[in-house]
Amino acid sequence: MLGLAGRPGWDTARVNDLGLSYFEDYVPGATYEVGSVSVDQASIVAFAKEFDPQPFHVDPVAAAAGPYGGLIASGWHTAALVMRVLVRNYLSAESSLGSPGMDEIRWLYPVRPGDTLRVRATVTEARRSLSKPDRGIVKTLIEAVDQDGQTVMRATGINFVRARAAPQTPDVGP
Amino acid sequence: MLGLAGRPGWDTARVNDLGLSYFEDYVPGATYEVGSVSVDQASIVAFAKEFDPQPFHVDPVAAAAGPYGGLIASGWHTAALVMRVLVRNYLSAESSLGSPGMDEIRWLYPVRPGDTLRVRATVTEARRSLSKPDRGIVKTLIEAVDQDGQTVMRATGINFVRARAAPQTPDVGP
Repeated sequence: MLGLAGRPGWDTARVNDLGLSYFEDYVPGATYEVGSVSVDQASIVAFAKEFDPQPFHVDPVAAAAGPYGGLIASGWHTAALVMRVLVRNYLSAESSLGSPGMDEIRWLYPVRPGDTLRVRATVTEARRSLSKPDRGIVKTLIEAVDQDGQTVMRATGINFVRARAAPQTPDVGP
Repeated sequence: MLGLAGRPGWDTARVNDLGLSYFEDYVPGATYEVGSVSVDQASIVAFAKEFDPQPFHVDPVAAAAGPYGGLIASGWHTAALVMRVLVRNYLSAESSLGSPGMDEIRWLYPVRPGDTLRVRATVTEARRSLSKPDRGIVKTLIEAVDQDGQTVMRATGINFVRARAAPQTPDVGP
């Protein structure tokens, strides 16, 4: 099941189109165009009514007179949409072991109804866990860019990722 | 409309129960028990199916055999639920002008079906904006604690908050 991403006829459900299936595949410096997601007014309002019902997220009329001159997506909605893209094509269901958090998240530019966001991921750090050597810790610079080239969100995510192989341990004989 | 929080008979829709209605009300060092929120399995699965469909968030059977020994909420779901509490009772619809991001977010302990999270907010910094003196920048340490006293999430949020009054400007005569 190793390294089979994209080979027709193989079960590729456990890997993604980018071929990232285990910790060893996340190499610092590598950048991926992960995918894109569009957002419409109905979903902006629905998300915000449930989780972030501020006027500029839920009420188009109030939003037009508000600080952003129109309805904008909750930053949490933007983050969740970006996560959907990452889960589909950057993380692997086989190896993703969850996340302890984000080092930083910045909402840099409003996301408005009709926007399409491209998600870019750059591996910034990848190190084997000392306490649990069957996995590694991967840090990723995540950027979401709208159809006009504006970076709307930037964040540094941290993920626990299962390793394909045990770490190299020198001086271990048969 | 200033400082009327909690006075019966007044329109308090624009302020919250904690009396935080404008920038000047957010004083570094102040801690608030903001409110609580519960989460059930159906909402955990529904959120994750839309935004974070990893096995340990969407599939109880796979989750039971997975790294957390059962279904856990997406960290983005937890963050969104915490936001709902903050919008209801820590931010003011009158003065909240949005957020440029979070300095850090940590998911420290799994959130499972049936958990109830209390949200605590501590103002850590409040300074007038230099470029836009009609508002301030408030930093808040946000903590979510479950029914067993475990801190499940910790984050530092940043909010733009409208000021009640113009800044004090000495040496300005009539």
